[in-house]
Amino acid sequence: MANISTKAQQMPASAIRKLVPYADAAKKQGVKVYHLNIGQPDIDSPECALNAVKGNMPQHVSYSHSAGIMELRQGLVEKYYRKIGIDIEVPEIIITVAGSESVNLALEIACDAGDEVIVLEPFYTNYNTFAFLNGITLKAIPTDIRNGFQVPPIEEFEKAITDRTRAILVCNPGNPSGTLYSKENMLAIGEIARKHDLFLISDEVYREFCYTDEPHFSAMNIPDLDQNVILVDSVSKRYNLCGVRVGCIISRNKEVMAAAMKFAQARLCPPVLGQMASIGALDTPDEYFTAVREEYIRRRDYMTGRLNKMEGVFTPVPMGAFYTIAELPVDDAESFAKWMLEEFRINGETTMITPAASFYKTPGYGKNHARLSYVLEIPEMEKAMTILEEGLKAYPGRTSGK
Amino acid sequence: MANISTKAQQMPASAIRKLVPYADAAKKQGVKVYHLNIGQPDIDSPECALNAVKGNMPQHVSYSHSAGIMELRQGLVEKYYRKIGIDIEVPEIIITVAGSESVNLALEIACDAGDEVIVLEPFYTNYNTFAFLNGITLKAIPTDIRNGFQVPPIEEFEKAITDRTRAILVCNPGNPSGTLYSKENMLAIGEIARKHDLFLISDEVYREFCYTDEPHFSAMNIPDLDQNVILVDSVSKRYNLCGVRVGCIISRNKEVMAAAMKFAQARLCPPVLGQMASIGALDTPDEYFTAVREEYIRRRDYMTGRLNKMEGVFTPVPMGAFYTIAELPVDDAESFAKWMLEEFRINGETTMITPAASFYKTPGYGKNHARLSYVLEIPEMEKAMTILEEGLKAYPGRTSGK
Repeated sequence: MANISTKAQQMPASAIRKLVPYADAAKKQGVKVYHLNIGQPDIDSPECALNAVKGNMPQHVSYSHSAGIMELRQGLVEKYYRKIGIDIEVPEIIITVAGSESVNLALEIACDAGDEVIVLEPFYTNYNTFAFLNGITLKAIPTDIRNGFQVPPIEEFEKAITDRTRAILVCNPGNPSGTLYSKENMLAIGEIARKHDLFLISDEVYREFCYTDEPHFSAMNIPDLDQNVILVDSVSKRYNLCGVRVGCIISRNKEVMAAAMKFAQARLCPPVLGQMASIGALDTPDEYFTAVREEYIRRRDYMTGRLNKMEGVFTPVPMGAFYTIAELPVDDAESFAKWMLEEFRINGETTMITPAASFYKTPGYGKNHARLSYVLEIPEMEKAMTILEEGLKAYPGRTSGK
Repeated sequence: MANISTKAQQMPASAIRKLVPYADAAKKQGVKVYHLNIGQPDIDSPECALNAVKGNMPQHVSYSHSAGIMELRQGLVEKYYRKIGIDIEVPEIIITVAGSESVNLALEIACDAGDEVIVLEPFYTNYNTFAFLNGITLKAIPTDIRNGFQVPPIEEFEKAITDRTRAILVCNPGNPSGTLYSKENMLAIGEIARKHDLFLISDEVYREFCYTDEPHFSAMNIPDLDQNVILVDSVSKRYNLCGVRVGCIISRNKEVMAAAMKFAQARLCPPVLGQMASIGALDTPDEYFTAVREEYIRRRDYMTGRLNKMEGVFTPVPMGAFYTIAELPVDDAESFAKWMLEEFRINGETTMITPAASFYKTPGYGKNHARLSYVLEIPEMEKAMTILEEGLKAYPGRTSGK
């Protein structure tokens, strides 16, 4: 029996997905599971996206250009990015296999094995996975749940920089915290990137989900940083097309794009049917986004309201994305999440949450934190939250909390 | 301006795709380009595949399970693999983002950076790309165009094995050579893998394209090698669904599959619309494959016939896939291919071929070889071959050949 590689052995399992077998087992027993664990909204995709596939099915589904279908690249430049004030040209955008490939590409292009990337913790757990795969070390700067995970003073970034630092990676609005970066935050981070000549990799896949009156400020609009900014984007969240696996990588740095093209060629092309849906999605009316945003605000307010009324629970009110991190009165959020799936039911139903420790790099941080996605309709969420509340009361590993 | 990583700088550009800009430029001038350069057939996908997407479009396209939609995994096991004599269970198959991801996964799971993998050259050029990305060295055993790229004696494998060798990677039938491995070939390679406890990674994406009366012999059916075999497969070629980006990785080795699952979780899920098409494709009638095979035999015979009649050109008659390698009377096949795209036209048309040097690892090998895909209808191919023939006569770097 041949042995698998050390890399494959040491590869971290996805904390977001590793509880899936427990959920599957519960479902096999006939238990209904409320999924607060994953960023998979129940909101319909725009009709124009789905119709673009149904109505244009080709006779055979051929490869597209490795950089993506030209109509999609051009459409994104002209119909989407220009409209939101991000001014780019077609050669500055390559279509990727969703945001996942885009993040991985950005890291590979910025860093060699042994290099370091600065992130704010809590951060999207797969950043760590992709860093691991490329032999890159994430250096995490902690933020504080009690002040809503605000961006820390710029001195903290200075302290984290070493001679191996190659990039700062931000997620704005943030998964898992829902933190929205202000223009001032972004300009300050840009200043640091410029000073130390670091790449600024900006993951903005939740851009359409901002709940303040200020417009979202993209890293692409930081002055005099064109050669350092790499934008990670995706249609997954914007149009509720998570499954089509279409995103993009954007940079005005020609070397970055030339390198991205080489990586893109190795995997031949992004999914064509998903690209067709994405072309259709470009005609999504503004009202779609307005309605979705209003719905998320209602859901966020409901979820954070319920959570903060539970004894021993604290969560801030996030201004972006559709997640919140909650501090729970439990010994260990992973054990609690597993226990909910295996043991706890109300009327044959249970709630699934994501333990948040893997969103932290600093050992011990976030052990009693969970990420909750407000992606269910309020009547569903009501049941899910009640189950969570009762589960917290009944959980054998309960602590006093707060 | 931040500098890109050494890895991104050194990453090889895809030889298959790096001539694309020249083809694009020719098309912009209004030139019609006959594409003999890429494995993109003009044959229709099965209707059942396309209808499965059109007729079942969901309200929103959600993530699937990271291992793929259960109906697809189960369907492949029961409706496809069982039928062709490959006996596997659902946990032994994970859906990937096409064959590309499957190859990359297999290499990552078998090897750490610094390890070696044995391939027969010429080999699919992206094997080298994926090896590069993982810091793996390909050790190429040469085969000979003059005997139809037959599998060399097993002593050649023995000689190539070092203490860093972790796997043998075969492509059967072979891209780019069209070589079909006999049962005896596979058993002999299996024997070596067993003796040295190496993984045998078997890329069988062209399985349905075999042109002898013997059935295809899968690595999965080598006796007593269950713990060493990793199968790479894809729906791309089988159903002319190249653009849907759906493939799979298969192994009876539980550690391999557990590792594959961790990698799969990192990229969340394979493309869902493509998976839907693949579920539909499982109902493809046998007549579809028979008709496609007959069509390819006609095309192969036409192409190899034409090639071998050209002065100074030699090609074997391949028994699988839809490619052949031809030796051309040119100084350098890459310069020739570029020259065809930039300079040579007949009635405003030209032919695009793939220079084959990048399919070889041994320096200098294959410099005057090209890969030609017989993926066009014969009337189209007729024109393409005439342009090639005349181009070879007119090319300034022509040599005496043979």
